[in-house]
Amino acid sequence: MTTESTAIDIAPMRGFLLDLQDEITTTLATEDGTTSFREDIFERPGGGLSRPRVLDGGELIERAAVNFSHTVGASLPKAGTSRKPELAGAAFEAVSVSLIVHPRNPYIPTSHANIRCFVASRDGVPVAWWFGGGFDLTPYYGFEEDCVHWHRTAHAAVAPYMPAFGDDLYDRLKTWCDDYFLLHHRGEPRGIGGLFYDDFDGPDFASCLGLTQSVGSHFLPAYLPLIQRRKDHPYGERERDFQRYRRGRYVEFNLVWDRGTRFGLELGGRVESILASMPPDASWRYDWRPEPGTPEARLYDDFLRPRDWLNGG
Amino acid sequence: MTTESTAIDIAPMRGFLLDLQDEITTTLATEDGTTSFREDIFERPGGGLSRPRVLDGGELIERAAVNFSHTVGASLPKAGTSRKPELAGAAFEAVSVSLIVHPRNPYIPTSHANIRCFVASRDGVPVAWWFGGGFDLTPYYGFEEDCVHWHRTAHAAVAPYMPAFGDDLYDRLKTWCDDYFLLHHRGEPRGIGGLFYDDFDGPDFASCLGLTQSVGSHFLPAYLPLIQRRKDHPYGERERDFQRYRRGRYVEFNLVWDRGTRFGLELGGRVESILASMPPDASWRYDWRPEPGTPEARLYDDFLRPRDWLNGG
Repeated sequence: MTTESTAIDIAPMRGFLLDLQDEITTTLATEDGTTSFREDIFERPGGGLSRPRVLDGGELIERAAVNFSHTVGASLPKAGTSRKPELAGAAFEAVSVSLIVHPRNPYIPTSHANIRCFVASRDGVPVAWWFGGGFDLTPYYGFEEDCVHWHRTAHAAVAPYMPAFGDDLYDRLKTWCDDYFLLHHRGEPRGIGGLFYDDFDGPDFASCLGLTQSVGSHFLPAYLPLIQRRKDHPYGERERDFQRYRRGRYVEFNLVWDRGTRFGLELGGRVESILASMPPDASWRYDWRPEPGTPEARLYDDFLRPRDWLNGG
Repeated sequence: MTTESTAIDIAPMRGFLLDLQDEITTTLATEDGTTSFREDIFERPGGGLSRPRVLDGGELIERAAVNFSHTVGASLPKAGTSRKPELAGAAFEAVSVSLIVHPRNPYIPTSHANIRCFVASRDGVPVAWWFGGGFDLTPYYGFEEDCVHWHRTAHAAVAPYMPAFGDDLYDRLKTWCDDYFLLHHRGEPRGIGGLFYDDFDGPDFASCLGLTQSVGSHFLPAYLPLIQRRKDHPYGERERDFQRYRRGRYVEFNLVWDRGTRFGLELGGRVESILASMPPDASWRYDWRPEPGTPEARLYDDFLRPRDWLNGG
């Protein structure tokens, strides 16, 4: 964090995220057209607010969870400050939107995004802040043009911030995403990636705020076209079976490796909000591999490996 | 560990476990009658052997995994000795049978057992050893007489060893099981428990060997009658749906809390052997609770809480 003139204030990010949650849930519910999001509201101590919204059993969207959370804490616990021990005891606020979309049609990929901002203060004066964000895509049956569109939209989200963050910003965030969304126990990527960053606290608050809002705003432009392109693609039990099997990988990643999920479960967050990211169903097969040459094998061969999608894969 | 005259030798436990694996897989396959166990054999460095056996898609048993493993190591890594740092660098051997049975009929509970022995040595002389073991039961639709039978058989397994281990042996192992098989994030027991112990290294090797073999030998007498009593109980989609939902809890426990699973995945064990314990399928519902008074509510109200099953519940 550098000295700067821009006010360090979480309020603009809070307002942005509340609006972003509205925009995303309205758009997804309209696109589905058969059901709506259920909203829960939990007021939190000190003015915090948790507002999970979950859509369940739509014809197009089998499950989606779009959760807004604003946490206000009087004293940062030691466990939350391993990276910055000097912050123990500081007051803090954190705001985030975390979302996941599990479409029913196996030709539409599952998508995930998380946008977050943290500010710590002492005696009302901000002493530390950071931002994180990103989105990533998990196809079952891949389409190269979908992956290219996804990554080009990701690039468009971060490009305006390269002057502030450096010319390698997109490459860093793409690689960070590939590294993070990895099932280490299988040496297997969760999907085809996108953007990921955490703990961004420079060059200045305004740049981080702008970048993070841009990433949030580019989620729908990145994802909606994929829904619209693939929603009428015919499928049968074979594709649903493979989707269910691959959803098992999603469960493995979330429960074994995802820091947000594990942190939430271990620290006693609201379980149903945290696990709203789980797929509606999942299956496991013993030592199964797809037949070479099948569409299922193509997912592993052509999509579940880091590729330069920005330049056509 | 006390000084003793009985030879500290892992060979009898190894032989016992190979026989136990045979007995259990033969009995389960015979009981199912529609399919058999697939066996894989992996020879390990230094004379070790891993022999997973998995039954998949039987009419009675939807999936069962009964894995034998014998690990021989030249030098115990530091990560494996946090409890006994003085053992770092010692040679070691470990043998275990780990098993899980997922029946198809939701009126038959899922069962799990794990029996293990560890010996460390320097220059060919044993310097430390310990045993662990136990079995636990996870019903979907509970029957009190089944729980009583399960726990009475558990008691019969350990009763002959109370003179050596103390009169509270059964109570300790029953409570240890209740404490271990807890979904901490939900404050919810995985099932109705049974026996669990780990790191037993006294009063002497022979008593621990006897106790652990007795626990292993009592698994089938504890479980087989429950299969036979419930296998013809009629069920429909409602019961299968609830079973799938509850299997989600099994996934949560194994991936978030089970030490063996997490240790195995983080240290790079064979993933398909470790995750052979996963149910064939699982589902998640957002913020779902059973209707009061239904058979599904009865599971939570009457079975998913510690009870004195030995004395009738």
